[in-house]
Amino acid sequence: MATGKINVSVDNIFPLIKKFLYSDHEIFLRELISNATDATLKLKHLTNIGETDVDYGNPVIDIKVDKENKKIHITDQGIGMTKEEVEKYINEVAFSGAEEFLDKYKDSAKDSGIIGHFGLGFYSAFMVAHKVEIITKSYKDEPAAHWTCEGTTQFTLEDSDKQERGTEIILHVNEEDEEFLEDNRIEELLVKYNKFMPIPIRFGTKEETLPLPDDAPEDAKPETKTVDNIINNPNPAWTKQPTDLEEKEYNDFYRELYPMQFEDPLFHIHLNVDYPFNLTGILYFPKMTQDMSVQKDKIQLYQNQVFVTDNVEGIVPEFLTMLRGVIDSPDIPLNVSRSYLQADGAVKKISSYITRKVADKLKSLFNNNREDFQEKWNDIKVVIEYGMLTEDKFFEKAQKFALYPTIDNEYYTFEELKETIKDNQTDKEGNLVVLYASNQNEQHSYIQAAKDKGYKVLLLDSPIISHLLQKLESSEEKVTFTRVDSDHVDNLIKTDEEKISKLSDDEKEKLKGDFEKVVPKEKYTIQMEAMDSDAAPLIITQPEFMRRMKEMQQTGGGGMFGMGNMPEMYNLVVNTNHPLTSEILGAEEETQQRLIKQSLDLARLSQNLLKGEELTNFIKRSFDMVK
Amino acid sequence: MATGKINVSVDNIFPLIKKFLYSDHEIFLRELISNATDATLKLKHLTNIGETDVDYGNPVIDIKVDKENKKIHITDQGIGMTKEEVEKYINEVAFSGAEEFLDKYKDSAKDSGIIGHFGLGFYSAFMVAHKVEIITKSYKDEPAAHWTCEGTTQFTLEDSDKQERGTEIILHVNEEDEEFLEDNRIEELLVKYNKFMPIPIRFGTKEETLPLPDDAPEDAKPETKTVDNIINNPNPAWTKQPTDLEEKEYNDFYRELYPMQFEDPLFHIHLNVDYPFNLTGILYFPKMTQDMSVQKDKIQLYQNQVFVTDNVEGIVPEFLTMLRGVIDSPDIPLNVSRSYLQADGAVKKISSYITRKVADKLKSLFNNNREDFQEKWNDIKVVIEYGMLTEDKFFEKAQKFALYPTIDNEYYTFEELKETIKDNQTDKEGNLVVLYASNQNEQHSYIQAAKDKGYKVLLLDSPIISHLLQKLESSEEKVTFTRVDSDHVDNLIKTDEEKISKLSDDEKEKLKGDFEKVVPKEKYTIQMEAMDSDAAPLIITQPEFMRRMKEMQQTGGGGMFGMGNMPEMYNLVVNTNHPLTSEILGAEEETQQRLIKQSLDLARLSQNLLKGEELTNFIKRSFDMVK
Repeated sequence: MATGKINVSVDNIFPLIKKFLYSDHEIFLRELISNATDATLKLKHLTNIGETDVDYGNPVIDIKVDKENKKIHITDQGIGMTKEEVEKYINEVAFSGAEEFLDKYKDSAKDSGIIGHFGLGFYSAFMVAHKVEIITKSYKDEPAAHWTCEGTTQFTLEDSDKQERGTEIILHVNEEDEEFLEDNRIEELLVKYNKFMPIPIRFGTKEETLPLPDDAPEDAKPETKTVDNIINNPNPAWTKQPTDLEEKEYNDFYRELYPMQFEDPLFHIHLNVDYPFNLTGILYFPKMTQDMSVQKDKIQLYQNQVFVTDNVEGIVPEFLTMLRGVIDSPDIPLNVSRSYLQADGAVKKISSYITRKVADKLKSLFNNNREDFQEKWNDIKVVIEYGMLTEDKFFEKAQKFALYPTIDNEYYTFEELKETIKDNQTDKEGNLVVLYASNQNEQHSYIQAAKDKGYKVLLLDSPIISHLLQKLESSEEKVTFTRVDSDHVDNLIKTDEEKISKLSDDEKEKLKGDFEKVVPKEKYTIQMEAMDSDAAPLIITQPEFMRRMKEMQQTGGGGMFGMGNMPEMYNLVVNTNHPLTSEILGAEEETQQRLIKQSLDLARLSQNLLKGEELTNFIKRSFDMVK
Repeated sequence: MATGKINVSVDNIFPLIKKFLYSDHEIFLRELISNATDATLKLKHLTNIGETDVDYGNPVIDIKVDKENKKIHITDQGIGMTKEEVEKYINEVAFSGAEEFLDKYKDSAKDSGIIGHFGLGFYSAFMVAHKVEIITKSYKDEPAAHWTCEGTTQFTLEDSDKQERGTEIILHVNEEDEEFLEDNRIEELLVKYNKFMPIPIRFGTKEETLPLPDDAPEDAKPETKTVDNIINNPNPAWTKQPTDLEEKEYNDFYRELYPMQFEDPLFHIHLNVDYPFNLTGILYFPKMTQDMSVQKDKIQLYQNQVFVTDNVEGIVPEFLTMLRGVIDSPDIPLNVSRSYLQADGAVKKISSYITRKVADKLKSLFNNNREDFQEKWNDIKVVIEYGMLTEDKFFEKAQKFALYPTIDNEYYTFEELKETIKDNQTDKEGNLVVLYASNQNEQHSYIQAAKDKGYKVLLLDSPIISHLLQKLESSEEKVTFTRVDSDHVDNLIKTDEEKISKLSDDEKEKLKGDFEKVVPKEKYTIQMEAMDSDAAPLIITQPEFMRRMKEMQQTGGGGMFGMGNMPEMYNLVVNTNHPLTSEILGAEEETQQRLIKQSLDLARLSQNLLKGEELTNFIKRSFDMVK
C-alpha cells in the first residue's frame, strides 16, 4: 500500500481561478478596494493597540484611471508589505493574509472590520488585466518592493524607491476590458460596490460651488473650488447606534440609498444583533401599491460595508422583500445556491430574527400612536397580510396589530371587531358572521343594504384576501366571513325570524315558473324570498364558498381543484313582497316577459354582469324610455 | 531582480475547491455520472476505431444506495484506469483526463460526446462525502487499483482484486448530507440531471406488470416481472434527425419533458446546426394565456445530454422564453454571469439563429396551412407580437405572417388588410385609418356603429398592443390606428362631407350651456355634433392619443412621461340631430336637468363609467320606471 499527497497542478488551476473565481469581471475593483481597506484598517488597529507608533493620519484610498496608457492605479496608505510578505501573501495563492492576521490578533481584531477571507480576491485583477504590478512599502522600516506578473505563474520581484507607506496596485488593462478605462464606468462601480466602505475613497477631483457671502452684491457670481471627489460615506447610518440617530437622519440615509425616490418612507426598523450571529441594518417600509411583483429587489446586502447583492431572496422572508434598506452581515454564506441558503441554520436564524424585529416594530407603532398607524394601514397592509398568510409566527404576533377597516373608515383589531359586532351579527347557530366587501363601487347596493340593517361592513380589498380569510376562519372558532353580495341581506346572518310573504305558496310557484321561462337556467338559480317591500325586487347573489374557492385558485394555490374552471353560477333572488313582483305575477304574457327581462337586466347591472350587445340594447331601450 | 513561480498552496486550496466548485451540493451525482459516461464513451470510441478488441457489450451505469452503511456506489463498465492513470488523473487536480483524451484523438473523437472539461468534477464528491474510494480496472490487462482519500490531501493507493472492467466510486456520505441516502432523493436527482444521458443508468429494479394473453380467463391476474429500473432515455428526440421523426414522436417527447402537461403542443421547431457553433434542440409552442410571466422557465438547457439549467435567460431571446423544450449546446459558456453571457459573441449568434429558425417555421406554417395557422393565432399571438416589439429582425420577418383578425373572425396580413380597407377607410388627408377594438363586450355599441358604416374593425386585445401599434405606425407610411371609441363614428375617419345640423348655431350654443350646468366639466369636454338621427343621442369618447400613451405607461416603458398619472378625461358628444336632444332643448329646467342626467348616466353605462352609489341610484330610479 502506498500513500501520497494530492498535488494541485498550478499551471492548470491558475487559469481556472481567473476564469471561475467570480462570474462578473467588474468584481475586480471591489476586491482590490477591499484589500486596500483591510491594509488601512490593519494599520489603524496596530496603532490603536500601541503595536506601532507610525502616524495613522487620515488615510484615503486613491483610484486613478490612466486611459492613455491603459492603466488603473489603486493606492492605499495602509500597512504595506515587505518583500518577504509579498513572497508569502501574494506568491502563495490561497494563503490568506487576513485570516492569519485575525488569528494572531484574535481578540483585539474582532471589531476592526477586516474583510478578506481567502486571499484569492487579489487574483481577480487578472480577470481584466494582462499584467499586474504591486509597489508596496511596509510601515516597518524596510525598503519598498515591486512585484510584476503577466498573468502566468512567473513573477518578478525587485526593490522599489517608493517612499510613502502603503500599497499601489497597477492594472494593465486587457484590450477586451477597456470599458474599465472609462471614468463613468469606474465611478458607476465605485458607487455600486463601495458607496459605504469604511475608508474614504478618492476618485479624482470635482468642482464645488461655494456659497455666496450674505453681503454679496446681487450680480455676484458664486466662486467654485476644486475639491477631492470622495465617493463613499464611510459612516453609513446602519453602523451607528439607534440612539445616536434622529428621524431626519434615517430619512436622509433612505435618500442616499434611493436617490430617485422622492417620497419619505413610512417608518424604519433598525436591526442590530451580535449574538448568535452578527447583523446590522435598517429596513424601511415604503408606500406600497397593490402590485407586489414590481416592488422587490430593493434591499441591499452588505458584508462589512461592502456591497454584495440586491437579491436577498432566502435571507429575508419573502413577504419582507417588498421592504427597502440594507442588511450587513458577515455571517451570510455567499457563493452558494439559494436552496442551500434556505437550508442553512444561521440564515434561518437571521430570517426569523428579522421577522420578529419587524413584528415588534409594528406592534410598538400600533401601541404608541394608533391614529398614525391607522393612517398608514392601507400602505402597509399588503406586506402584513402576506406575512400573516405565509409565516405562522408572524401571524400570531400580527393578530395584536393587524387592522380590519370598515367601509366607513373605522379600524378594528380582530378582538375589537368581535366585541363590536357580537350582539348584532351572531347567527342562530352561534357563529359570528363578519361581513365584508372587496370593492366599494361594485358592491355598493349590497353594502348599503347591509348598513341599513345596522351591520358593520369591512372593506377587504387585498389580492390575497380570500386566502387570509380562509386562514382566519380555521384559526378562530365560530367565525365566518361572508361577502355582502353572497346572499340577500336577510340571509347573510341567519336568524329564526321568518318574514311573511305577501304571496301564497301557489302564487310563488307560478311566479317561479314565469321567471324560469325567461331567465337562462344554466346561469341562474331562482330563489323566492319574502323581503322588505322597499328592498330591490330582484337581486343577483353568488354564494361565498364557491366564489372564494375560485378566487383562491386565481391568486395561486389553495382553493379546490378544478374550481377555477367551473362556470360562473349565480342566485337570482326574487323579492316576493315587492310591488313590481305582484305586477309581474298579474301581467299578461307579453308584458310579463318584458318586465322580467328589464328587471333582470337591472339586477345584472348592479353586479356588473350586463355587457356587450345586451348592454347596448338595454341602453337603446332606455333612451327610448327617456324620450 | 528576482523571478519566481507562484505557488498554489494545496492545503489551502483543496477546501476551497470543495466549497466553491459548485454552489449546489446535489451536483456531485451529475458530475460522477458524467465521468462514468465519459469512461464508457471512451471505450466505445476505442473499439469503434479498432484501438482495442475488448467486448464493448451493452454497458450500463449502476447507482446503488447502501443506507445502512451510509454509502453510495456509482459503477461503470467503461475504460477503467490503471494505477498509473489514477496517479495521473486523480492525484493531479485540474489535470483533465477528458481534455487530454480529446487532444490525442482529436479528429475521431469529435462526435463521441465526451463531456469532461477540467477534471475537477470528481472532487465534487467531497462536498457530500468525508471519504471517497475508487476501485478501478482498466480495459488494458493490468491489475485493478484501489484509491482511498478522507478529504485531506493525503491518499492511499493499493492493488484491488476487482475483476470486471470499469470504475466503481464509493462515497461515504457525511452526516449532514444524509438526505442523499434516501432512494427518492437520488431518483429525483437522476431524473433532474441525467434523464437524457447517452449511457443507460440503472437504479435498482422495479416490478413491471405483464400484459395478459388474449385467451386469458376473465378472472386471471396479470403476472409481474422484476426488471431493471433504467432511469434515462439514452436517445432523446433532439439527438435524432428531423427526417427520422414523426409528429407523434415529437408529441411523445413533449410528454417526456413535461409529464404533467396534458395538452399537446401547437407545433415544434427542430434546431440543428453545427457551424459556426454546435446546437441541437426542439422548441415547442404551447397554448399561451395572456399572463406572460407565469409561463417562463420552461426551456431546459443541456450540454451533451447533461441537464444544466432551466434558466435560459440571455441565451434565448426574451420573447421566446415563453416556449418550451430543450436546447443542447456545448458552446454556451457556463459559470458566468448573465450580463457577461449576453455580451458573448457566440451566445449572440445562438440567440439570433434561434430567432431566425422560429420565424422561418412560423412562415412555413402560415404558407403551408393558413387555415390551421389562423386557428392557432390566438394561442401564439402574444409571443409573436412581443417578438415584433422587441426584435427588429423578427419584426421584419413577421410582417409576412403576423395576422390582424377582425371582430368577425376574418384574418388579414397587414398587406391584405391595407388592400381591403383602402377604398373605404382612407381619410381626407390620405391616411389609411385602421379601426380596432380591444374588448368586444365593453366597446360593443361603438363596434356596432363602425360596422354599420361598413368599416372593418380589428380585435386587438394583447396587453402590449399599444406599444406594437406605435411601432407599426412609425414603420408604415400614412397608417393610423384608431380605437372605435376614440371619437363618434362620423369622426373616426374624417371626410370632407359635412352633416347638416337640425339645430341652428344659436340653439347649439344654448344647448351646450344647458349641458354644462349638469355635466361636471373637470371630467367631460362637451362636443356638439350633427350625426344621424338614429345614432345615440349622447356618446362618451376618449381620444386615441391620450388613451394610448396612458396604456403604454401602464404596461411598462414608452408613452409620455407623467401621462400615467393624468386624470381620465372624456369627450361627451351630443348628437344635435337626435329627437331627444331637441326635447332637452325645449324642456323646462327641472325636466331638462332630469333628462340630461338620465342620458348622461346611460352614456356612461356604455363606457362602463357608471359605478357605486350613482349606479345604485340609477337602478333604483329605473326599477321605479319599470313599475
